[in-house]
Amino acid sequence: MIHFNSDYLEGAHPAVLQRLVETNMEQAIGYGCDPYCEAAREKIRAACGAPEADVQFLVGGTQTNTTIIASALRPFQGAICAVSGHINCHETGAIESTGHKVIALPAESGKITAQQVADYVEWHRNDESMEHIVYPGMVYISYPTEGGTLYSKAELTAMYETCRQYGLYLFIDGARLGYGLTSDACDVTLPELAHLCDVFYIGGTKIGLLFGEAVVIMNPALQRDFRPMLKQRGAMLAKGRLLGLQFDALFTDDLYFRISRHANEMAKKIREVFVSAGYPLLFDSPTNQQFFVIPDDELAILARDFGYEYWERVDATHSGVRFAASWATTDEQVEALRKAVNGLKK
Amino acid sequence: MIHFNSDYLEGAHPAVLQRLVETNMEQAIGYGCDPYCEAAREKIRAACGAPEADVQFLVGGTQTNTTIIASALRPFQGAICAVSGHINCHETGAIESTGHKVIALPAESGKITAQQVADYVEWHRNDESMEHIVYPGMVYISYPTEGGTLYSKAELTAMYETCRQYGLYLFIDGARLGYGLTSDACDVTLPELAHLCDVFYIGGTKIGLLFGEAVVIMNPALQRDFRPMLKQRGAMLAKGRLLGLQFDALFTDDLYFRISRHANEMAKKIREVFVSAGYPLLFDSPTNQQFFVIPDDELAILARDFGYEYWERVDATHSGVRFAASWATTDEQVEALRKAVNGLKK
Amino acid sequence: MIHFNSDYLEGAHPAVLQRLVETNMEQAIGYGCDPYCEAAREKIRAACGAPEADVQFLVGGTQTNTTIIASALRPFQGAICAVSGHINCHETGAIESTGHKVIALPAESGKITAQQVADYVEWHRNDESMEHIVYPGMVYISYPTEGGTLYSKAELTAMYETCRQYGLYLFIDGARLGYGLTSDACDVTLPELAHLCDVFYIGGTKIGLLFGEAVVIMNPALQRDFRPMLKQRGAMLAKGRLLGLQFDALFTDDLYFRISRHANEMAKKIREVFVSAGYPLLFDSPTNQQFFVIPDDELAILARDFGYEYWERVDATHSGVRFAASWATTDEQVEALRKAVNGLKK
Amino acid sequence: MIHFNSDYLEGAHPAVLQRLVETNMEQAIGYGCDPYCEAAREKIRAACGAPEADVQFLVGGTQTNTTIIASALRPFQGAICAVSGHINCHETGAIESTGHKVIALPAESGKITAQQVADYVEWHRNDESMEHIVYPGMVYISYPTEGGTLYSKAELTAMYETCRQYGLYLFIDGARLGYGLTSDACDVTLPELAHLCDVFYIGGTKIGLLFGEAVVIMNPALQRDFRPMLKQRGAMLAKGRLLGLQFDALFTDDLYFRISRHANEMAKKIREVFVSAGYPLLFDSPTNQQFFVIPDDELAILARDFGYEYWERVDATHSGVRFAASWATTDEQVEALRKAVNGLKK
Repeated sequence: MIHFNSDYLEGAHPAVLQRLVETNMEQAIGYGCDPYCEAAREKIRAACGAPEADVQFLVGGTQTNTTIIASALRPFQGAICAVSGHINCHETGAIESTGHKVIALPAESGKITAQQVADYVEWHRNDESMEHIVYPGMVYISYPTEGGTLYSKAELTAMYETCRQYGLYLFIDGARLGYGLTSDACDVTLPELAHLCDVFYIGGTKIGLLFGEAVVIMNPALQRDFRPMLKQRGAMLAKGRLLGLQFDALFTDDLYFRISRHANEMAKKIREVFVSAGYPLLFDSPTNQQFFVIPDDELAILARDFGYEYWERVDATHSGVRFAASWATTDEQVEALRKAVNGLKK
Repeated sequence: MIHFNSDYLEGAHPAVLQRLVETNMEQAIGYGCDPYCEAAREKIRAACGAPEADVQFLVGGTQTNTTIIASALRPFQGAICAVSGHINCHETGAIESTGHKVIALPAESGKITAQQVADYVEWHRNDESMEHIVYPGMVYISYPTEGGTLYSKAELTAMYETCRQYGLYLFIDGARLGYGLTSDACDVTLPELAHLCDVFYIGGTKIGLLFGEAVVIMNPALQRDFRPMLKQRGAMLAKGRLLGLQFDALFTDDLYFRISRHANEMAKKIREVFVSAGYPLLFDSPTNQQFFVIPDDELAILARDFGYEYWERVDATHSGVRFAASWATTDEQVEALRKAVNGLKK
Repeated sequence: MIHFNSDYLEGAHPAVLQRLVETNMEQAIGYGCDPYCEAAREKIRAACGAPEADVQFLVGGTQTNTTIIASALRPFQGAICAVSGHINCHETGAIESTGHKVIALPAESGKITAQQVADYVEWHRNDESMEHIVYPGMVYISYPTEGGTLYSKAELTAMYETCRQYGLYLFIDGARLGYGLTSDACDVTLPELAHLCDVFYIGGTKIGLLFGEAVVIMNPALQRDFRPMLKQRGAMLAKGRLLGLQFDALFTDDLYFRISRHANEMAKKIREVFVSAGYPLLFDSPTNQQFFVIPDDELAILARDFGYEYWERVDATHSGVRFAASWATTDEQVEALRKAVNGLKK
Repeated sequence: MIHFNSDYLEGAHPAVLQRLVETNMEQAIGYGCDPYCEAAREKIRAACGAPEADVQFLVGGTQTNTTIIASALRPFQGAICAVSGHINCHETGAIESTGHKVIALPAESGKITAQQVADYVEWHRNDESMEHIVYPGMVYISYPTEGGTLYSKAELTAMYETCRQYGLYLFIDGARLGYGLTSDACDVTLPELAHLCDVFYIGGTKIGLLFGEAVVIMNPALQRDFRPMLKQRGAMLAKGRLLGLQFDALFTDDLYFRISRHANEMAKKIREVFVSAGYPLLFDSPTNQQFFVIPDDELAILARDFGYEYWERVDATHSGVRFAASWATTDEQVEALRKAVNGLKK
C-alpha cells in the first residue's frame, strides 16, 4: 500500500531527525528561549531578508492560525478569507471559538482578490447599519491555497496595498509555503512575500519536520505581546528546543527549498501519469497537491493499492480526489502508481 | 416628517404604558421573580397552549439570540441559518463572540428548507474530515423572516421533524412574531408554532412594548440552567417587573394580536400605494414590512418628507427600500404617503 | 410589608416617568442616535466638566461592566479588583465569559489600594514566568463599593497615578455613584472623579430611572469602537431614546443629586434606628446602604413586616444584613421600621 | 553548568527516541487514528485497568487542561481548584480564555479537601443570589501537586465521592503522574487513581517523552465529542503517530514507572544534600521536585554552576528555590551538587 493522501504521512527528513538525536541528552531551558531557537530565528530572518522580524515557533497549523488571528483582532472584528479557506472549513470553528467571525468571500481557484476585499470594506463602511455588522480586521490567504494554486506577485502586492489602505492586517498561511515558493509557477521570492504581508508562517509539518510552524511577524504592532498569547493558546511547547533544532536544520544548506522542489517534481510526474491516461484535472495546481476527476469504479480499483484523499463528488459516477507528493515521495512510488493507472483502462 | 423606517420608532402602546405608570411606586423584588412576571408567564403559557413551558423575559433581540444559542450549543457546534438571517448579518458577530460559528445556507426569500438542513448534516456526517468541521447543533429561523416572508405550517413541520431526526434544536426568532401570526398568509397558530420548535420568542420591542422579548422554552433540556445564562449574558433586568408588567398588558384582551393585525392592515395599504403607482416589489412580503424598488431620483424627493430604510442597491439608478408599518401607524400617515407617491410621477 | 432589600424596588422617579409618558407617541430613530440621547449626553458632559468625553447609554450593570472590560482588554489581560468586587462575585462569571480573568486582591472595607496594584504589577513584571501569568490590563473599583464605603480623593488620585504609571486603565463602577457623591463622607466632585479615571459610569437603575447606566469614556483610546462592542454584547437598546429621555430628566434641575442626597438622609435615619437600639454595624457605610449585625431570633420577627437583604452569617446566632434606602424611601417607612426595632427588645 | 531547574530539560528517553527513529520513514495516517496510537491506547487502558476508557493524546499540559475543562463545563460553570493550582497561576488565563472562571480555594501544601468543596457547593446552593454566582462544575486537582505533595487514597476517595454527590466532575492533572505514583509516600495505584476520577492525564513531557500527555477519559459523558474539541483547540497533532509511538514505548517494559522511580531516588539524594548541610525545606515534597530555603549570598555562589528554579522570596535575605530531578538526572550531577553545597559553608 502506497499513500498519496497527504504530505504529512512520514516522520522527519533524516537530516532533521539527526539533529534531534545528536542533541537529545543536552539540557536546554524551555519555552523557545534556548540557543537552538535563537539560531533558527536568525537563519529565518536572514532567509526572509527581514532582520527586524519576530520569529516564533508553534507546533501545528490550527494552533498557529488561531493564535495569530486572536492576537491581531479586536473583539468586534472578523477575518476575511476565501470560502474555501482552511480557517473557514477545516478547523472545527477554531477561529469562532476565539470570538471572531470568519467573513467568507466567494473564491476563484481558492483565491480572493484585492478588489473583493476593497468592495467588502467599502460596502461595510457605507452601510447605515455599519455598527451592526462585523468589522473586517484582517485578510487571511493561503500560499499555496488549499487547492494548490498560487497568488502572483502582482496579486499579493495589490492585496497588501488594499489592506494597508483600509487598515487591515494581511496574514498569509504558509502551511505549504515551500511547495509554493519552489513551484515553476511562482514569481515571488521568500523575502518579497515576507514584505508583502504583516505576518505569515513557514510550514514545517508538511515539509520535512516532525512538526512545527515558524511564524514570521513583520508588523511591529503584532510582535508585541505575541508570547503571552502563545502560552494562553496552549501553543508554547515546553521543550521548545525541539522546534528550534528542527527549523535550524531546515534552514541549513537550503534544505527547505530542496525538499520542497523535489515534492513539486514528483507532483508533476503524478500529474503526467493521470493526464496522459486521459483523466481531467479537478483544479489546475502547480504545486505538490494534484487533483483529478476519476470514475468511481476505477477509483475503487486504485484504492486497493494506493491511498488518496477524497475531495468532492463531481457527479453520480465521478469523484474528485487529491494525490499529494511530499519531500519523501520517491520515483518508485510514482512509477508504481503509473503502472496501476495505465492498467485501469485495459 | 413621517417615519416608516421601522416598527420601533414610537414608545409603548398606551395600554402598556398605563400599566407602568399605575404600578410605578409599588415595591417589587428584582430579576424577574416578581408577581407581574409570574402573571405574564401564565398568560403566555396559556396563549401557547404550553403549560409546561418555561418563559423568561429579556430586553432585546441580539441579547436574546445570543443567550439562547450560547445556552444550547456545545463549544464545537454551530447554528445553521439562512445567509440573510439576523444572527448572520446584523448582530456584529454576537454569536461568534460566544464561540460558535453561524453556518449560513443559501436562502430563497429569506427561508431555508428542511431538505437543505438534512443535506448539510448528511454531508457533515459522511465527510472523512467530519471532526475537522463545525458540528451543526441547532437550526435558527425567523418568523417572519428578515424580508417579511413566512414559513408555512408544512415547512415548519418538516423542519422540526428533520431537526429531531438529526438531534438539532430548532429555534424560532420571533422578534416580529405577531406580525407573522396575524398575516393573511399565515396558516399556523401560536400553539401550533410553539409545538413545532424547541424554543422561540415573542417579540415585544417591535410590537407594542417599550422593550422586551419573551422567550418560550418548550424543550426541558433547554429550560435547565437558563437563568444563570441570563445573568452571565447581562440579560437579567434588575427591575424585571417592567418586563412582566408589559407582557401582562400585551397578553390581556388579545392586545398583541390586535395591534399586530392593525400593522399588517396598514402595510397592505402601503403596498397598494406603491404597487398601484407602478413600483415593483423587491420582495413579496405578507407582513408589516414592505419592500419596493424605486428610482433614485424619486426616492430623493420622497426622502424630504418620509423616512424609510435603505435596503440594497438594485442597479445604477434604482434602490430597494423598506417601508414598515407598526401597531402605531395611522391612516393619516399612509394617506400622506399616498399623496406624495402619487405626486412623484407627475 | 415594607422592603428595604435594595435600591431598585420601585419604578422611576415621577419626573422621569413623566418624560416617557409625554414623548411616548413621538417617532425617534433607534440605537442611541436620537436627539434625546444627544441632549442627555450634553448635560452629562457638562456635569462632568468633560466636553470631550464620549457618553453611551446601556441598560444594566453587568452588561455595562462586561462591555467596558471586554472592549478595553487584550486577550491575555485581566482586570484587577477587590475580592469583594461585583465583577468577581455576582455576575455569574460574565467577565470570564469574555475570556478575561478577574484578578482578585484582598480588600479592606471593600477597597484596594494603589500600593497593592503597584505591588502586583511589579511582582508580575519581575517573575521569571511572567509570560505564563495573566497580565494586568485594568483596575476595576466601585464608587461607592459593594459595602457602601468610599475611596477618598487622595486614594483615587494615587490609584489613577499608579494606573497611568503602569499602563493600566482605571474603570470606576458607578452603579450607585450618586449615593457616593452626595455622602457626607465624600471629598470628591463629579468632575474630579471623572478626571481621575479612564472610564466610569453613572448608575441610573438604582437612582431614579426605570433602568439605565451612562458610561462616560474619558480616555480617547477607549472611545474608539465602543459602539460596535455595544451591539455585539446585546447592549444597544433598539429604542435608545428611552435611555436618553431618562438621563435627560435625571440631569435636569439637579435631580440626580437631589434624590441621591435624600436616600443618604434616609439611610442615616435607618442607621440611627439600629445603632440607638444597640445593634452593631457590620460595615461602617456613609452611603445609602447600611449593614447591621442582628440576632437571628430578632431578625425573624423583623422579617414579618420588613424586607432586607441577607448579607452573611456572623456567628451561630447572629446575621449580617443590609437595609438600603433609595430615592423613594419615605419618612413613614423609616418610622415604621423604628417602631418595630424599638419593640424588639421589649 | 548543570541544570536542576525542571524535569523537561533533556529530550526523550533513548528507548523512546529509538522508536521514532526506526519508524521515521513509515507512512501513517494522521490525527491519532494510526496503529501506533491504537497500540498505545490499549497498553494504557491495560495499565489503568480501564478497558472502557477513552485515551486521547495531546502535546502539552496547558492545551490538555484547557481542552478537558472547556469540553466538560457549561458556560456558566467554573472549575474549583487550589489557589496554587497550575490553571489558576501559570497558564496566562487559558481557562478563562474559554469563558470559565477558576474558583480558587485556599490550599494547604498545595491541596484542597473534599470538605472545602462540599462547603463551597452548599454555600452556593443556599445563597439567595445563587443565579448570580458562577456555578461549580468541576474540581481540578494535581497529582502530585505543583509543590510536589500527594493526595492520599483516602483524600482522593473523599474528593471523588463529594464530586459525585454534588454532580461535579473530578479532573486530575497528572503532568507529573509517574513521579507521584512511584513515590514512597504514595498509597494509590494507577488503576485505583483512574477509578477515583472522571478524567485524568498521564504526563509524558516531564517523564521521558519529547512531548505528550495521554488523557484517560473514564466517564462516558466526557468521552463523547472529545475529538472535535481536540481539533478546535489546536490540540490534534497532524502526525499523531509521534504521540502513539512515544506512549507505546513508555508503556513497554514498565519504562514509565522505572524512570519515574529513578527520578524520585535522585530527588531523595538532592534532599539529603541540602538537609544534611542544614538548609530548611520550603515544602516537604516526597516526589521529584525538592524545595529549599537558601540564603541569597550562598544561592548566588551556587548559581555559577547550577541551574534551579526561583520559587519565592522567603525574607529579606533568603529565597525559596526548587531543584528538580528527572528520569535523566545522574549520580554524577547530584554528587557535583553535593560538593558545591558542602563547600558553601566553608
